[in-house]
Amino acid sequence: EDKSVSDSDKVQSTLSITVVGASGDLAKKKIFPALFALYYEDCLPEDFIVFGYARTSMTDEQLRNMISKTLTCRIDKRANCEDKMDEFLKRCFYHSGQYSSEEDFSELDRKLKEKEDGKVSNRLFYLSIPPNIFVDVVKCASQRASSGSGWTRVIVEKPFGRDSDSSGELTRSLKQYLTEDQIFRIDHYLGKELVENLSVLRFSNLVFEPLWSRSYIRNVQLIFSEDFGTEGRGGYFDNYGIIRDIMQNHLLQILALFAMETPVSLDAEDIRNEKVKVLKSMRTLQLEDVVVGQYKGHNKGGKSYPAYVDDPTVPNDSITPTFAAAAIFIDNARWDGVPFLMKAGKALHTRRAEIRVQFRHVPGNLYKRNFGTDLDKATNELVLRVQPNEAIYLKINNKVPGLGMRLDRSDLNLLYRSRYPSEIPDAYERLLLDAVEGERRLFIRSDELDAAWSLFTPLLNELEEKKIAPELYPYGSRGPVGAHYLAAKYNVRWGDLGEDRDP
Amino acid sequence: EDKSVSDSDKVQSTLSITVVGASGDLAKKKIFPALFALYYEDCLPEDFIVFGYARTSMTDEQLRNMISKTLTCRIDKRANCEDKMDEFLKRCFYHSGQYSSEEDFSELDRKLKEKEDGKVSNRLFYLSIPPNIFVDVVKCASQRASSGSGWTRVIVEKPFGRDSDSSGELTRSLKQYLTEDQIFRIDHYLGKELVENLSVLRFSNLVFEPLWSRSYIRNVQLIFSEDFGTEGRGGYFDNYGIIRDIMQNHLLQILALFAMETPVSLDAEDIRNEKVKVLKSMRTLQLEDVVVGQYKGHNKGGKSYPAYVDDPTVPNDSITPTFAAAAIFIDNARWDGVPFLMKAGKALHTRRAEIRVQFRHVPGNLYKRNFGTDLDKATNELVLRVQPNEAIYLKINNKVPGLGMRLDRSDLNLLYRSRYPSEIPDAYERLLLDAVEGERRLFIRSDELDAAWSLFTPLLNELEEKKIAPELYPYGSRGPVGAHYLAAKYNVRWGDLGEDRDP
Amino acid sequence: EDKSVSDSDKVQSTLSITVVGASGDLAKKKIFPALFALYYEDCLPEDFIVFGYARTSMTDEQLRNMISKTLTCRIDKRANCEDKMDEFLKRCFYHSGQYSSEEDFSELDRKLKEKEDGKVSNRLFYLSIPPNIFVDVVKCASQRASSGSGWTRVIVEKPFGRDSDSSGELTRSLKQYLTEDQIFRIDHYLGKELVENLSVLRFSNLVFEPLWSRSYIRNVQLIFSEDFGTEGRGGYFDNYGIIRDIMQNHLLQILALFAMETPVSLDAEDIRNEKVKVLKSMRTLQLEDVVVGQYKGHNKGGKSYPAYVDDPTVPNDSITPTFAAAAIFIDNARWDGVPFLMKAGKALHTRRAEIRVQFRHVPGNLYKRNFGTDLDKATNELVLRVQPNEAIYLKINNKVPGLGMRLDRSDLNLLYRSRYPSEIPDAYERLLLDAVEGERRLFIRSDELDAAWSLFTPLLNELEEKKIAPELYPYGSRGPVGAHYLAAKYNVRWGDLGEDRDP
Amino acid sequence: EDKSVSDSDKVQSTLSITVVGASGDLAKKKIFPALFALYYEDCLPEDFIVFGYARTSMTDEQLRNMISKTLTCRIDKRANCEDKMDEFLKRCFYHSGQYSSEEDFSELDRKLKEKEDGKVSNRLFYLSIPPNIFVDVVKCASQRASSGSGWTRVIVEKPFGRDSDSSGELTRSLKQYLTEDQIFRIDHYLGKELVENLSVLRFSNLVFEPLWSRSYIRNVQLIFSEDFGTEGRGGYFDNYGIIRDIMQNHLLQILALFAMETPVSLDAEDIRNEKVKVLKSMRTLQLEDVVVGQYKGHNKGGKSYPAYVDDPTVPNDSITPTFAAAAIFIDNARWDGVPFLMKAGKALHTRRAEIRVQFRHVPGNLYKRNFGTDLDKATNELVLRVQPNEAIYLKINNKVPGLGMRLDRSDLNLLYRSRYPSEIPDAYERLLLDAVEGERRLFIRSDELDAAWSLFTPLLNELEEKKIAPELYPYGSRGPVGAHYLAAKYNVRWGDLGEDRDP
Repeated sequence: EDKSVSDSDKVQSTLSITVVGASGDLAKKKIFPALFALYYEDCLPEDFIVFGYARTSMTDEQLRNMISKTLTCRIDKRANCEDKMDEFLKRCFYHSGQYSSEEDFSELDRKLKEKEDGKVSNRLFYLSIPPNIFVDVVKCASQRASSGSGWTRVIVEKPFGRDSDSSGELTRSLKQYLTEDQIFRIDHYLGKELVENLSVLRFSNLVFEPLWSRSYIRNVQLIFSEDFGTEGRGGYFDNYGIIRDIMQNHLLQILALFAMETPVSLDAEDIRNEKVKVLKSMRTLQLEDVVVGQYKGHNKGGKSYPAYVDDPTVPNDSITPTFAAAAIFIDNARWDGVPFLMKAGKALHTRRAEIRVQFRHVPGNLYKRNFGTDLDKATNELVLRVQPNEAIYLKINNKVPGLGMRLDRSDLNLLYRSRYPSEIPDAYERLLLDAVEGERRLFIRSDELDAAWSLFTPLLNELEEKKIAPELYPYGSRGPVGAHYLAAKYNVRWGDLGEDRDP
Repeated sequence: EDKSVSDSDKVQSTLSITVVGASGDLAKKKIFPALFALYYEDCLPEDFIVFGYARTSMTDEQLRNMISKTLTCRIDKRANCEDKMDEFLKRCFYHSGQYSSEEDFSELDRKLKEKEDGKVSNRLFYLSIPPNIFVDVVKCASQRASSGSGWTRVIVEKPFGRDSDSSGELTRSLKQYLTEDQIFRIDHYLGKELVENLSVLRFSNLVFEPLWSRSYIRNVQLIFSEDFGTEGRGGYFDNYGIIRDIMQNHLLQILALFAMETPVSLDAEDIRNEKVKVLKSMRTLQLEDVVVGQYKGHNKGGKSYPAYVDDPTVPNDSITPTFAAAAIFIDNARWDGVPFLMKAGKALHTRRAEIRVQFRHVPGNLYKRNFGTDLDKATNELVLRVQPNEAIYLKINNKVPGLGMRLDRSDLNLLYRSRYPSEIPDAYERLLLDAVEGERRLFIRSDELDAAWSLFTPLLNELEEKKIAPELYPYGSRGPVGAHYLAAKYNVRWGDLGEDRDP
Repeated sequence: EDKSVSDSDKVQSTLSITVVGASGDLAKKKIFPALFALYYEDCLPEDFIVFGYARTSMTDEQLRNMISKTLTCRIDKRANCEDKMDEFLKRCFYHSGQYSSEEDFSELDRKLKEKEDGKVSNRLFYLSIPPNIFVDVVKCASQRASSGSGWTRVIVEKPFGRDSDSSGELTRSLKQYLTEDQIFRIDHYLGKELVENLSVLRFSNLVFEPLWSRSYIRNVQLIFSEDFGTEGRGGYFDNYGIIRDIMQNHLLQILALFAMETPVSLDAEDIRNEKVKVLKSMRTLQLEDVVVGQYKGHNKGGKSYPAYVDDPTVPNDSITPTFAAAAIFIDNARWDGVPFLMKAGKALHTRRAEIRVQFRHVPGNLYKRNFGTDLDKATNELVLRVQPNEAIYLKINNKVPGLGMRLDRSDLNLLYRSRYPSEIPDAYERLLLDAVEGERRLFIRSDELDAAWSLFTPLLNELEEKKIAPELYPYGSRGPVGAHYLAAKYNVRWGDLGEDRDP
Repeated sequence: EDKSVSDSDKVQSTLSITVVGASGDLAKKKIFPALFALYYEDCLPEDFIVFGYARTSMTDEQLRNMISKTLTCRIDKRANCEDKMDEFLKRCFYHSGQYSSEEDFSELDRKLKEKEDGKVSNRLFYLSIPPNIFVDVVKCASQRASSGSGWTRVIVEKPFGRDSDSSGELTRSLKQYLTEDQIFRIDHYLGKELVENLSVLRFSNLVFEPLWSRSYIRNVQLIFSEDFGTEGRGGYFDNYGIIRDIMQNHLLQILALFAMETPVSLDAEDIRNEKVKVLKSMRTLQLEDVVVGQYKGHNKGGKSYPAYVDDPTVPNDSITPTFAAAAIFIDNARWDGVPFLMKAGKALHTRRAEIRVQFRHVPGNLYKRNFGTDLDKATNELVLRVQPNEAIYLKINNKVPGLGMRLDRSDLNLLYRSRYPSEIPDAYERLLLDAVEGERRLFIRSDELDAAWSLFTPLLNELEEKKIAPELYPYGSRGPVGAHYLAAKYNVRWGDLGEDRDP
């Protein structure tokens, strides 16, 4: 199976996309809209259908009605959006069934065959369901609803287990029914525009790669913060915590892309080989290099914000971290000694996801006098902001125009917004399209997953066994001060707490 | 004499600035306005006077009247500009005299003493006069109008001779009457904001210096173009030509600043030592690495533009170049093999002065496919635009947001205009202030001048001896095509002919 | 299966080594002696036996007698060598059988079991047989003589096919009976001391890695020459030629080790991953980058040397190359544009195998004058001589002691001979020991083999289809002059033709 | 005056060398022998004479007799050594006079003129006299015995003052009678073969310069030790101490050559410009970065060694340091943060002068396991041994030949002795020849001297003002342990205390 084949599929074969868990939130908010957007952009094969599958009883019409509410056209929409929507909805169908019923999937298979009408058929299953039923669904879908003539692929989303053991168990179970090539593990952060751009920046420009090492980079920060808490929906979260929810996947994936060596080519296997390599070069996380926190209630401006444990879906005595900071080290020639600091938290003062690369001080700096004693103020910094408002900017020192010699920090910046005014596609669109086309670059291979869990599992176990109490921080604050002490230990200053003017 | 002393001068001593050649164009358009601007910005000592000196008979009042027409306040002017002008004019005086008359300078001395009123006096002479009378004036000023108690300095502007011999002769003559420390040779391009910023960028940022060598830089271009010809005032120019007028000084000075090694400190002597070093490492220019041109008449849009030789002040058979391009090589460890291309011309299609740094191709470029066969299109480029609209931008490749993998070149840019909206001071202000304060960083030392002439003199002699005919190019065009062949010889493509979107 | 297990094997389990093709030359000259050396050095498990297997009818005693003639003790032999030989021979047995007879292997199995006496048994088969019976033997050995309780491994030696297709076919066939982990493909050059040391030098010293790239290395030469021809035994060779016999395996393997990126660790899989990566980054060989030659007869000093085609086992009209030179390019960031020149030949003037690394010229060389115009003479060169007399030396320029400033090239050298006077073990010892211990670092994985064939197969096909005639060169000469033109095309000078004083 | 002129001098003009202080030890042991060696090697002009000048009454014959005892031919002497000696002695003359008597120098001038016989005469004065009479002799020689037709040069040896003030005073005094160009300040360490070779190694080899910076070098050590004390001749020494005697000149000069940037050319002025630059970039020495010691008496093996203060020419309560260690920092881009450790002492366990360059650890070292916990043991080190037995060697890690993977440190070495068996000329020969030829590269310019004193003068003053007591160490020991604590403060380990096998 290769891309050229799937290209020809567009014409001759038929594609069915079955969204398992069609009545859920993610399906409604992200998956159906992304499918429509792809259709709208003419990226799907000519002959395709979409099936919703869930336990709820529903007609095709009811499904269409339900999803029509979340379909939107791009801001820069063109005239015929309404027509397109209608056409799209006509291709949507619904099949009700149990997730572990082989009969129900056989029935689905029958319906799919009917629509496929004897053509070569390719089938994509999107599992938008809780992890405990992953294997059941995969078993049924694989055994009863696989394509006979084309390919069958399954997209799954995290959580992929809770630790090395459970993740390994899940992989083994899936592989009873699917080959590695059929499994598309999504980390939707990898579908973000800026994450895609990261490799382009590094590898297609001469000016970045020479700086991309311990010789010039002093530390790298990966920061994720949300300005809201679990808001009454903490049940699932409480079982996982912020480290499993954000760090071990989203941030670690971005770190791997950032820090990996140059791949042989842009082929999926080559890129993923490099990601695995850099993950294997990372030192297993130690408890003393981690700070955990949990938000507490807070009153501000007459408004009251609840504590995490106030969430009715969360146990009163939960010590699940809603915040974590960690220092990671990569023991290879490129990164030896460079701290990679991660920070992720809920209910913080701002919403943000970014990579901050702080460069070293200028050796023998001639302008030392001009910066006073604080050379940190003069450090170059490259910021890759993933959200909100994707942006890249490089902080440099320059002379303030005018008489005298006053230095200032300015940003050499590339503002996506102004440079590329058209709307940036949602991560799900890219990932769905890649799965359809068999492009695996942005999906996580099982050895990557293993390596990622290896790094975090001993720490997670230790946190749970020792019942480490999280440091409390007020809802809406900048998080626990422990994060500062962790950074200070490695002579780093968090870069997101300064007063960046928005470039 | 050091800066701390001159600082204290502000308070205790008196400063007189004598503009010799006060009735000339430069004095009116640049020097008096710059002096006023410095006064307005409160940069001059409290106790100062300005004397105009010329052969014309004029009263103080007439001088004041004359220069008042060119005094302007900054665009961002404050309320009291008119008052300030009045105060400034009150301190302006005029003395009429012959340029070679010791008596007349004695008389000036008498007037100066009267105004100085017994205080410690510092005297600055600005020679805004033709080169053939430099020595006469210096002799008279030095012997009859030097300060007895403070310092005496003389500012001179190019031309500093026509070649190594005449320049050496001029220096020797000046040194009969002045020490090296008293002579301030101006190259007003060194007073440009961006030229000042060049060192700040290189030496106060970690991200530039590692790239600043033959390992990463493929070629450097120094480009100067004017969109007008001599316009009836070619008499002086015809005796010098574009190489002496622009290349051997302005462009070469900028090149020296660009290419020099890191100085020990920012002290004037340390910086000038490095400039001399890099000048001495340059290979003497060869005729085959130079292209000369001269503009010819041209009709466009119903309008007719004259040829250079149509200028009534220019001989009909003049072969003086109005355009030149040259390839310069620096035989040191940093720049071995990197071509530095210079280009300067009059009557071209645009007005521009800039440094363009073209980086090498990415070795083993993974994105080769995305650029097709022309990797040049993907080369990073750093542009330092000196005029018009000072700007710095770095051309980088990035992914076009959206599905698929389309690459694009964008600019990481620092727009002076928008970032620093206040008006940038004129180069003359900076230079006059530096001369008052004894800061010699931006003035040319005699060994620099010697080194600069050594590079160009053999070429200039050969051009004249062989009567090399310039390649004609139409007024308003992009210059002679010979410049392209010169660039091609060194595998370079001129960067100013592309379609830069103005960032 | 991992190393710690095999370590414990030493004590508890029994090891049998079956040399299939026991009556052949290689077995006699290399394999039995290597086994004895390992035994002598106490490197084999306590409980081991050696079985000879071949078609010839022979008793155990006859085998012992035969191999006893080639067993030798190290030059630095200790007192008890004779005793040790006797003990070793007692453990040697012989079994006569057909290579494709399952019955005969069943019989072998029976004998092995008898000797193993119920202990956990590990079995190693060394296939010292022609390639056309590889699969037969593997089938029989695997199906009838595999160990039931321990591991079973098979060592095979080149040729592994003649091109991509036949090699792929062979791999597929072997994998019907063996897993990848059981196949140990030997390239005995990888067992050479200096080849092992290559990685130590690069990765355990700070001073080499910074120089190990296109920035500093101008070209790399891999040279193999023998000072004898086929000498009446050209039958096998004629079917393969020098490219398949030496270049595509020995030289390419060394090149891969030389040029690979730093592996994540020293584990076999990590090293082999990197080798595959660099092989995949190589550009497929083009006919115009290859020179082929064949030796012709030559009279010298009254002695007459035969032509290749004079060898009675070689067809009269053979165009099989006995010499080849090739230029290889690696399209990655480290090596972009650096020519890797290979040269291999029989019947040349000397016997030698070495890697020569020629560094670039010093940019802006201050001592240019001292070298005259030929900067090549002043180029640093690192030589890694594999045979004869393993050595490492770095050619550097230094001042000749004495008055005046005369420069000279000297060698910073590390002479194995004098530094480490004890005898260096034969490559086969190392490889056999590694196979016993399950260390796969020096064995070739099937994807490596595929990548290696991909590089050479199109060229080999083209040579054969177009019947490219080799350039004739006299026996005992320096090879065809075409090799110089190939080098010159890439601005390289072969380093082995100078007058190296033996350091 | 340039070299080509002095070359032609050889033929047409006459050279006189006057050794002032001819009866002293240095003159006898070093200067006359060096002059003879130059004569023997045919390096002196055809027409030369040597004059001894001192207060002692002596005939020419007596001088000849005296110096004939110290003249030696090279070990690799040729047949006619005796004849050569006779011829040389015939050209030696003596003039007795007071050092401050202008009349006596006039008399010398008369004798010189007589010998010069009307030819163009060049005169070289070698001042082998105590510093307090430098100026007197220079005054007399300059005013009464200068050459009228050729050049006159004066060679002086340290001490050049005791601190910035006295050195400045000396320079000013000398310049009353001589121009800078006439003064040749000798630091005889700069005449050492290996010191000369240092620049050749760095600048004519590609492989060293990339490593020559803070990125790869962890520290540099300059070590000077003598295995004897003042031995009854401490009078002069006690007034200066080891810092002035060895560190501020010999070691600092070598450091400057080691650490300087690449000069524009090998011309004396260019090299000395770079030396001044790097001296100016050094941080003034601080008391806390210095350790001083003094040797005390010691009995060993039945032999008793005296304390420094036991020397009858030394005051009993002297606190003059006979040992010092210091850490020096260079605040420029190349060396920022790299400690340069100096150590100099008398009466230590060994006689040695060397530069040791310790490289950084290998980042992400794959062989970490093989070195145990002490990565320092695996650090590459470049040793430039100045005495005894000049040598260069680079310590590298390599695999011990044999089975298994054991690493070892070996030396890539260049042994002068074996490579260049002929005798290496004494430093004085080179320096005298250079002075004759007007080559100033190895002589110290007055701004160098100023910069060198600036670094040490505050420290020297503080040591004396605070009467810092030196740490006592036994005669023949490894010096005060304070030196270890100083090194440890900067995370350095002295390299000379290990067990170097002599390579």
